[in-house]
Amino acid sequence: MDAISVIRAKRDRAELTDAQIDWVIDAYTRGEVADEQMSALAMAILLNGMNLREISRWTDAMIRSGVRMDFSSLPLPTSDKHSTGGVGDKITLPLAPLVAACGAAVPQLSGRGLGHTGGTLDKLESIPGWRALLSNDEMMDVLRDAGAVICAAGDGLAPADKKLYALRDVTGTVEAIPLIASSIMSKKIAEGTGALVLDVKVGSGAFMKNLADAQELARTMVGLGKNAGVNTVALLTDMSTPLGLTAGNALEVRESVEVLAGGGPADVVELTIALAREMLAAAGVTGGKDPETALRDGSAMDHWRRMIAAQGGDPDAALPVAREQHVFTAPADGVLTGLDAYAVGVAAWRLGAGRARKEDPVQAGAGVEIHAKPGAVVTAGQPLLTLHTDTPERFAYALEALSAPDAVTIGAEGADWKPTPLILDRIA
Amino acid sequence: MDAISVIRAKRDRAELTDAQIDWVIDAYTRGEVADEQMSALAMAILLNGMNLREISRWTDAMIRSGVRMDFSSLPLPTSDKHSTGGVGDKITLPLAPLVAACGAAVPQLSGRGLGHTGGTLDKLESIPGWRALLSNDEMMDVLRDAGAVICAAGDGLAPADKKLYALRDVTGTVEAIPLIASSIMSKKIAEGTGALVLDVKVGSGAFMKNLADAQELARTMVGLGKNAGVNTVALLTDMSTPLGLTAGNALEVRESVEVLAGGGPADVVELTIALAREMLAAAGVTGGKDPETALRDGSAMDHWRRMIAAQGGDPDAALPVAREQHVFTAPADGVLTGLDAYAVGVAAWRLGAGRARKEDPVQAGAGVEIHAKPGAVVTAGQPLLTLHTDTPERFAYALEALSAPDAVTIGAEGADWKPTPLILDRIA
Repeated sequence: MDAISVIRAKRDRAELTDAQIDWVIDAYTRGEVADEQMSALAMAILLNGMNLREISRWTDAMIRSGVRMDFSSLPLPTSDKHSTGGVGDKITLPLAPLVAACGAAVPQLSGRGLGHTGGTLDKLESIPGWRALLSNDEMMDVLRDAGAVICAAGDGLAPADKKLYALRDVTGTVEAIPLIASSIMSKKIAEGTGALVLDVKVGSGAFMKNLADAQELARTMVGLGKNAGVNTVALLTDMSTPLGLTAGNALEVRESVEVLAGGGPADVVELTIALAREMLAAAGVTGGKDPETALRDGSAMDHWRRMIAAQGGDPDAALPVAREQHVFTAPADGVLTGLDAYAVGVAAWRLGAGRARKEDPVQAGAGVEIHAKPGAVVTAGQPLLTLHTDTPERFAYALEALSAPDAVTIGAEGADWKPTPLILDRIA
Repeated sequence: MDAISVIRAKRDRAELTDAQIDWVIDAYTRGEVADEQMSALAMAILLNGMNLREISRWTDAMIRSGVRMDFSSLPLPTSDKHSTGGVGDKITLPLAPLVAACGAAVPQLSGRGLGHTGGTLDKLESIPGWRALLSNDEMMDVLRDAGAVICAAGDGLAPADKKLYALRDVTGTVEAIPLIASSIMSKKIAEGTGALVLDVKVGSGAFMKNLADAQELARTMVGLGKNAGVNTVALLTDMSTPLGLTAGNALEVRESVEVLAGGGPADVVELTIALAREMLAAAGVTGGKDPETALRDGSAMDHWRRMIAAQGGDPDAALPVAREQHVFTAPADGVLTGLDAYAVGVAAWRLGAGRARKEDPVQAGAGVEIHAKPGAVVTAGQPLLTLHTDTPERFAYALEALSAPDAVTIGAEGADWKPTPLILDRIA
């Protein structure tokens, strides 16, 4: 077996054999297959595709490159959620303790943000004292105590994926459904969850810009999960406009706590409850407390406080606030017909909420607060957004993103505007 | 400008701009674009193609990555030949001194063999004392004295191509017509020849297995040459069976000297004369000595001896002979209907005439002598080939290549066998 013959096979549109896939993933992890060979193979896969059998084997080979966690000693069934990433997508924060309050354990291994979409760990790190890095024993302790844990994935989990993801990032080979699906699912399956709900985002602020691509990705991931014995369901949800009223680390923690307190923006509450019900059903939890009740009666908040405290965080501490604010106002009277998720995400990123390179720091207080969502009637000069940053020289750069033609659109009063449904499809 | 945006453009089937091509070749030569990025781009080019404008610019950028030689101070027009590589293709050896004897100067920068096709420098190095590595001044001296020089290309010539070729070799991205054409033509144009004749081989022993691919490659290269002001013509010639009666380094030098002495196999003589006439016509040399005459009257041989001697070689020295021989005999009575170029090339390579890796040595005496060519009537047990090597443990491995179903085929006497024409097409 050698790298060139595997590359040539995929280049010439052949189906890769199990032996070829096992060998190339293992040899790449060991460094026997070089980066320049793997990137040529990744481009061939991007352009010529892989079928579900190939993707399943590829995923399985990446899982076998590292350890697979095991939560079978827990008294509760496990259920996890993964979002493909969007703007203002803080759902994991209220969702994990909410599901714990309703009877499933949630072992959530999360990542950091890169580019215009935020990262769950970056958000939680704005809580003073909170630690993302836990040992396996600590993780089990938090899970037993709070019913949910959100922490960083250890180096031992799918190391082949870690290496391949970094390579794809610099070689223009990120946007391949077989590679996206196997990357996500190898980590989630290795994480050892019994059930998994995927939130596949669709729209300008998401990876997948149109429904057909998102459906293909969702179907592929659901197939991979089921092949690996993980009960997997996908919701396809709108990401044409930001979720909720905040995009930024501490800003999103604040909004998540509002939801856990029984308040919060309607779209965040709706999606949190829908995903919680899917997670409980996928884990086979029936007849327990309903998520709506758990938000109202304080039990979800109770799990949140225990989870944050168990990871060293102070749930009562004041959250960081950015040093400088700039108010972005409505340029005209009318109906706000569009507030583009991508533009807001880029603005938040440029304000300091996100990072351009993996090693960059993020600002806890930076981001965008949203005062009006699409459908709202606005008058010229009314505040639409408040931009937050510690470094005011970034305002101009953030405003540039918001000045793109489709970033903020206002139609004449009575303009034809119809709300997009939040949940677009369900694939099981 | 950045590597990812250039990769993405070609990945998404866009036409690369001049600025993108110039930047990526320059940045790759400087090491700013990494190998793993260039290999992803090469795969995207292989699968999505480039048009002639892109290939011209790509070629030009590779030429500009190094020096361009200049022979305008010579009193004679320059003309060169390039073969895409075949089995038993020793034509450069008699051709260069022959054209010099007829009135054009031949500055031939050559390479070494890799895989089953031989390399001109490997062949000449079997002549005791002969040196492939010359300084620019030495090269001019040999050209002035002998009218022809065959030597190694210096490091300064198209260094981008050198780096890219080594990368393509290990990433399954060799077989792309835009990359093959630009690689060949960047070196040939940088070499500074005024006219160029391409011998594009077609058949089992060649890179291009069918006429249509070879025609596309030839048309692309002729277009690139003309765009760069080099008068370029291509002959497409048969490589389904080896050229001449030898494949191997010293064996091919011996056959070349026979041709220069007015003898030699008919196919080698025919192709040498045809290419010589094309080279002279392309250089605008008319009314000079005809190549057939120059082979007969000893003037080509005289130029050969001067050329070899000027590079330290002894034209009268005995050539190396391999220590061991094995005779391969006809398995049946009948007509030899096929002697496959690829099988003979692989056998010669395995006997030690070629190398598997760039750093491997070659055996001067190793190779295959051919006693019967397709069309010959043979009787069972008659010698068809003599295999030569210094390392007899290689015989079995070489014989394996000759035992492939199409390697040596014998039909019943009177079997329907028609000779393939040697020259299949001409593209100007």
